[in-house]
This record gives sequence, structure tokens and C-alpha cells, in this order.
Amino acid sequence: MHFLPNDQMKRITSPILETLAGIVGDRVSQSDEELMTHASVLTYHDQKRAEVIVYPNSTEEVSEIVQLCASESIPVIPYGAGSSLEGQITAIYGGLCMDLRLMNKIKEIYEEDQCAIVQAGVRRSRLDQALERTALFFPIGPGFDASIGGMVSTRASGINAVRYGTMRENLLSLEVVLPDGKIITTGTRARKSSTGYDLTHLFTGAEGTLGVITEAALKLHFRPGAVLNAVCSFARMEDAVGVVRNILSSDINAAQIELLDEVMMAAINSYSGLDYPPSPTLFLEFHGSALDIEEGKGRLDDIVSSYKCLFFECSSNPIQREKLWQARVNALPASLSLRKDAVVMTTDACVPVSRLLENIVAAKKDVAEAGLIAPLIGHVGDGNFHLGILVNPSNKEEMARAKGVAHKISLRAIESDGTCSGEHGIGTGKLGYMKKEHGHSLSVMRQIKRALDPQNIMNPGKLVVFEYERPNIQPGRCSE
Amino acid sequence: MHFLPNDQMKRITSPILETLAGIVGDRVSQSDEELMTHASVLTYHDQKRAEVIVYPNSTEEVSEIVQLCASESIPVIPYGAGSSLEGQITAIYGGLCMDLRLMNKIKEIYEEDQCAIVQAGVRRSRLDQALERTALFFPIGPGFDASIGGMVSTRASGINAVRYGTMRENLLSLEVVLPDGKIITTGTRARKSSTGYDLTHLFTGAEGTLGVITEAALKLHFRPGAVLNAVCSFARMEDAVGVVRNILSSDINAAQIELLDEVMMAAINSYSGLDYPPSPTLFLEFHGSALDIEEGKGRLDDIVSSYKCLFFECSSNPIQREKLWQARVNALPASLSLRKDAVVMTTDACVPVSRLLENIVAAKKDVAEAGLIAPLIGHVGDGNFHLGILVNPSNKEEMARAKGVAHKISLRAIESDGTCSGEHGIGTGKLGYMKKEHGHSLSVMRQIKRALDPQNIMNPGKLVVFEYERPNIQPGRCSE
Repeated sequence: MHFLPNDQMKRITSPILETLAGIVGDRVSQSDEELMTHASVLTYHDQKRAEVIVYPNSTEEVSEIVQLCASESIPVIPYGAGSSLEGQITAIYGGLCMDLRLMNKIKEIYEEDQCAIVQAGVRRSRLDQALERTALFFPIGPGFDASIGGMVSTRASGINAVRYGTMRENLLSLEVVLPDGKIITTGTRARKSSTGYDLTHLFTGAEGTLGVITEAALKLHFRPGAVLNAVCSFARMEDAVGVVRNILSSDINAAQIELLDEVMMAAINSYSGLDYPPSPTLFLEFHGSALDIEEGKGRLDDIVSSYKCLFFECSSNPIQREKLWQARVNALPASLSLRKDAVVMTTDACVPVSRLLENIVAAKKDVAEAGLIAPLIGHVGDGNFHLGILVNPSNKEEMARAKGVAHKISLRAIESDGTCSGEHGIGTGKLGYMKKEHGHSLSVMRQIKRALDPQNIMNPGKLVVFEYERPNIQPGRCSE
Repeated sequence: MHFLPNDQMKRITSPILETLAGIVGDRVSQSDEELMTHASVLTYHDQKRAEVIVYPNSTEEVSEIVQLCASESIPVIPYGAGSSLEGQITAIYGGLCMDLRLMNKIKEIYEEDQCAIVQAGVRRSRLDQALERTALFFPIGPGFDASIGGMVSTRASGINAVRYGTMRENLLSLEVVLPDGKIITTGTRARKSSTGYDLTHLFTGAEGTLGVITEAALKLHFRPGAVLNAVCSFARMEDAVGVVRNILSSDINAAQIELLDEVMMAAINSYSGLDYPPSPTLFLEFHGSALDIEEGKGRLDDIVSSYKCLFFECSSNPIQREKLWQARVNALPASLSLRKDAVVMTTDACVPVSRLLENIVAAKKDVAEAGLIAPLIGHVGDGNFHLGILVNPSNKEEMARAKGVAHKISLRAIESDGTCSGEHGIGTGKLGYMKKEHGHSLSVMRQIKRALDPQNIMNPGKLVVFEYERPNIQPGRCSE
């Protein structure tokens, strides 16, 4: 067994297909339609189809399939909900797409231990549903109804990370099928442990390049006794960010601190028939006991009123809260409504909060100078913000301009002691930043990849690549 | 370069000492006294002296020393405060002890970003002192004034983990000198990132077997507006644990949930001249706003009064709080006062909270059946409890009996879907449990060790060992 350059990756032949059918029966497909839907997803990056899709329904089947692929040097691309944004599921070198949707069992909910054991194919919404009968919830909320396995693999976060952390902070253990087909469990249900290398975190965010995640033990949280939602608009971006900084250094229990800029708010007004001031606006959510929330409301009033606020409304009443949140929920379709011919090219900078304002201001200047439209939405309590650059993918010149803007935003984040991706990952789309952001650490990542996946069959060409198999870096991206 | 069996490790010769002096000047020692103090620490395990102690004062010096050791195949044992409990700093195969005490700079405190950059040799108490002028604190509190580097390497936690997590949850990034002397930084100051393998967590808890940690970017927290301390005693262990379970599923902001058993309380009474009921007692601390704390107090009253409580006192007044905490603070010397000829052999089981009571009850039965004395103290909010078995190290038969008890406690924890070490680590002392707890994951850890430290010079014989270099497993321990 040795590390294969990708041009030596094997194709899937008829005998291999027969062996596959022996493992999964008819849960295997090469239909054009299925190959297509597994390739074209939310990303704006070029996509390449896999050669075959399989739908295993157990960890043992996953293991058998991976063993087969290992023996035949065939790439394995784990697939959850297909909602990754940076090309994590494109089949650059062909191979087998492992769709885990049938592995959707919620195996156990340990209420007292605040823990759920779920298979990787479980969608977020299904877990929410299963938890309804308990006092618990799972806080990680990316923008899509993603699968748990995908969320682990991308180290996802989203709206609640300010208070509850990201996937990184909400895992107790993983079950993983290694590149040789062996099955491991990376931890126990103990809340903490000091025994050995932290494999749970090694596989979290590895984008399927070290193995297939088949199961996760998730940390759950008690639903708060009371929730307060608030929306406040400001004439100036610096006031909005100032309020964020103030909230973060107070002891109000903020769970969500979302910022939408004037472009996004105008789009939402027009899309949803609302009349918010078209100006930088914060969408805030606070969790606590009823008394907590009452106290927090007073503090929030004090903070907001020390800035020039155009609009401020808050409520702890569920119906009012939902109404307040309606605008936030429709942000993505509202964005797209700004340009009929466009798709969204999303940036994902994350910087220390003290560097947030300068990064946002500079990014918006880049967009303006490039003559583009790009509504901003940010999980700014973590210093994370997205610009959704609206581009017509068939307009090459415009695509290049947009990529140039995205490039500047990523570079500036790294130069601000931040990261080019807060939550969307690397995939193929951000490979060009790995060296810049990680320096010699990238070599350590490569050593780990070589050690654990010596044949390089696990999602090759993503996250950690080697000189001779580096996919073309897109125009406007920095080179390694 | 190839992976060296440890019997081929080289000794430190005069020319090597001369080269060392060229790097660190006179900050190198082979005095008997220094070699001795660097070997005999808090652990009850057999200790072996290093051949030389060096005191680097910069990351560059650490790098040069490691390069020298790599070129000469000499073991490197990173040393912080010497307070590890499982033999992490014993020089099994000789070699160089790298004492990082001179690397004690607090390089930067970013108040707004709630982050401090500190060198590995900084002690906890010094960081606390430096943070006094700010509104921030660092919550990780093991029982000793440990060094930050050591706390990272052991994945330490202690009293505040219920609310603030362990070292694992409180790191943004590490600077590490790799086994080949190269220097890496594992992350940025962004609160979250999805770019590449999580090297920060890989080095956290690695016990110096993958490199020397030289610097850490720590997450800080705002000091709570108000603090409430409470002490409550119960006739029965099940009532004490019942209160813990109730607190954990309420929304009181518990920061510390400590349990001391009747043996420990009797020892404290006698040592400190106090008159608590000699029965299972909870020491609780709650953090929040003043109103929070007031509300929490009411809830705590409700919970405690639904159990048969022998004693209950709580206060948010600083002087009263300190008085209440006096008993807790003196637990270790009080333990030792129970037997003049004894040292403490500490167990470190951590289990899901739903399995806590059965594990504590069974462990206390083991102790009684073995005719030993072992006060219990637990960070039970995380399911972690220690029995401090009092043993006379020169009484071999008694040592074997004590190890037998410790062995049963560790095994039972693993069988309860927990871990044999919640916070003390593996070192040499718990090597025998790695296979039992991790199964095939141990092979993955070995692959990582081989990939990153191909010469096996970094703290060899600890945490992850190989068949041919396995140190003698102690009597009463399970074998691999």
C-alpha cells in the first residue's frame, strides 16, 4: 500500500459494480439524474460527477464499501445533505459517492446526560423533532437543513455559536470508518477525558479526508426558560458593531448576535413587504430564565440607547418573536431576489471581534469598487461575516471580479489574525489559502493525511492536498 | 530517520553537553539536587531521573535544543510545574528534561477579544494576577499551581469545568515546537474556524509526545457580577448525587459542583477544627448577575429542601463565601493528616452523570473491602470523582491492594461508558487502560505518533506506546 498520486486513481469497472451490489443490493445507482443531483448543489464552484452513488444503511456496509474501494484504489466521497459550499463533495478524480441518507436513526437520547447518539445521515430538522418531547435541544444551526455527519465534517456552526459554541464544542464522540475499513469510536460519553490524542476533534472538520463519519454522540442543552428577541437598526455600521462589542462584554446571555447590512435590509423589505430602515441592523436573541431575560432587556436598553438607534423593538412573547424573526429567516431568498440571473458567491471571513469593523468596512468598499451587489449577513458575535456576492455564473468577467473581491476579503481576514473560513470549510474552493493561513502546520496536516489514508482514497483533492495533485487554483485566489 | 525502539535511545555525552551550553549558556544542569527535584513530584509512580535539565528562555532556544536531540536521538521530556500525577515527566529512557519555567511571559492580553497569549511556563497564579486589572479571568483550576503548558498537555480541568469547560474548550491556538525543531502555530485568534485539521486539539492532551508546547492563546471569560457559594450535607450519598442531578437539569448557573464524602468531611473537621456533619457534602458555586444569583438561590433552596438535608448554608457575601470555602480548600492536607506514613494514590474516573452514583457506591465498597482509607472528592458536575487512597509506599502488600482498588475503579468507569482519567492523563500510570478504553483508536494514535515523531524522541514511553517499548505495567493494572 502506498500513497497514490491522483492520476493513478482507478475507475469503477463492472466487476467492482457487481461486488458493490453484493454489499448494498439495489441501493446503488449510476443514473444520470442521481449523478447530477449529487454534484450540483449550493456551491458556485465547478462540480464533477462521481461514477456511482451508493446508499449504505449501516456502519458495517460503509466499512465493506470502503474496504472494496481501498483494495481497488477508488476515491470515496462521503455525502450528507449536499449543502456544503466550498466544493467538498465534487468528484474531482471520479470515484464513489457514499450517500448516507439511509443512516438516519436517532439511536439513543440520554436525557439526564444531555446526550444523543445519532447516525451521520440524520438531518438537523429530524433531530429537532425527536427532541421536542424532551426538555433538550441541539444548538448548532447552519443555514441549511444539513446532516449531522456533514456538520461534523465541516465543523459547522451558525446562529447559536456565541453562547453554545460550534460543532467542535458539542461533540462527545464519533464513530468513524477509517480508510482501511476498520471501525473506531473516538471517545466515550464522559463529559471530559484526558486519555490519549483527541481523535474526536481530529475528524471534526476533516471534510471526509480521513474517514467516513457514521455516528456522533452529541451534547444537548436544556431549552432556556425564556427567550428574548430584539431587532435594532443604526444609521452607521460602527454603531451596530459598537453595540455588539458592548453586548459581548456585558453579562447578558446572548445566544445569537446577527448583523445584516443596509443592502440586505433593503432586499428583505422589498422581498417580504416590510419597512425596516434600510440600514445596518442587529438581530439578537437572548436565552435565560424569565428574570434573567427581564434583567437583560434593561441592560440591552441601556446599551442600545447610548448609540444613535433608528429602530428598536424587542419581545419575549413567542408570537411577537416569530414576527420579529421573519425578516432574518428570509435573508437568503431576499438576497437572490435582488438579481434574477444571479447565484450567490459567499465569503466566510472570521476575525477577532476587535478587528470586525475594519474588516466589514473594507469588504464593503471592495464590493463597491468592483461594482457588485453583495448583501452582508454575519454571525458577528463570533467575528464571522458573510458577503453574498451576486454573480451571473455565465459572465466570466464578472465572476473574475467577484472572485477578486472574495480573495481580498479572505486575505484580509488572515492578515487580521483571523481565518478565511469561519464555518464553510476549505473543500476545493479555499485550498489556495491553506499555506497562507497555516504556514508549516499544513505540512503536519499532510503528514497526518498520509499516515491515516496512505492510499489517498478519502475525498482526495480536498482540504489537504499534495503538490502533484493540486487542483487548479481558481483565478483571483492566492496560490500556495 | 526512522522510528527508534527505545533501547536504541542514545545517552547524553560530553560533546552534546557542550553543544547544549552553546545554545543556553549556563542554563543547563546535571546537579543531583536538580535532577532529583525534577523527578520526584506529586505522583506515587516510580520516577526515573533525566540525564540533564535545560532551561530555555525562548521558543527559538527550544527549537534548537529539540533539533540537537533529534540529530542525536535523545529523548526530550517537557517539564512545566512538575505537578502531573501519572508519571508524565519520568525519564524512563533517560534523556533531556526541558524545564520551561523561564518562558513565563504573558505576552498580550486582548481584553476586548477575551484572549491572552502566554508562554507555556506561565503559572496559573501569575496569569490570575495579571488579569486582576481587567474584568476577565481564566477559569481552568486544577488542584495545583500548574503551568499553562502542562495544563494544555494534560487537558486539565478541575473545579470550574461544569460551566466553563476544560482546557479543551478554552484554547484558541498553540505554538508548538515539533519533533524536528520546526515551529508551528496551530490556529488564529478567530473564535472559530473551519480550515483544516484541528491541530490545536491534537496537541492538547498529547502529554508532550508530539512536540513541545511553547505558547498558548487562551480564551478568557468575564468575571461574574455576583457569586453564590453553598455548602449542603446529606445523610445519604444518593441524596447528594440526587441534588447534583437536579441542579444540572435546572437553569441555575452552576460553576462548581464538588462532592466530598463522609471520610473527607471527618478529616477536614479534624484538620481545620470545623464541625460539619461527617457525611456526603456538596460545595457549590454559582456565577451570574446579582438578580441571577438571587433567583438561583431560591431554586437551590427548593431542590435541597426536597432531600433529607443535614446542613445547608449559602452566601453571596465575599467574607462569608471565603469562610464556607475554607473546608474545601484544605481537603488535600486534611486527607494526608489521616495517616502520617501515607502518600495519596489518586483515582480519576469520569462517567456519565446518570452512572455516577453506582460508580461512587461501588468504589467506596471496593475501598472498604480492601481495608483501606480513601477520602472522596469529586468534580461531580462533570461525573468526575477522585478517591485519594492513603498508602504507605514502602508497604508492598498494601500498595498492591490499593492498586487493585484503583484498577477496579478505572475498569468500572470504562465499562460505564466513561473514562479511566477525567483530567490527570495517562503518563505511564494508566497505559494499561488505553486498549480497553480506545480499542482500535489506539492504533490510529500510534499512526499519528509515528508520523509526527518518526524518531520517537518526544516523551517516549508515555500515553501512546508501542509493543516493544512498553514499560512494565504495574501490578493490579490491566494489561494491553
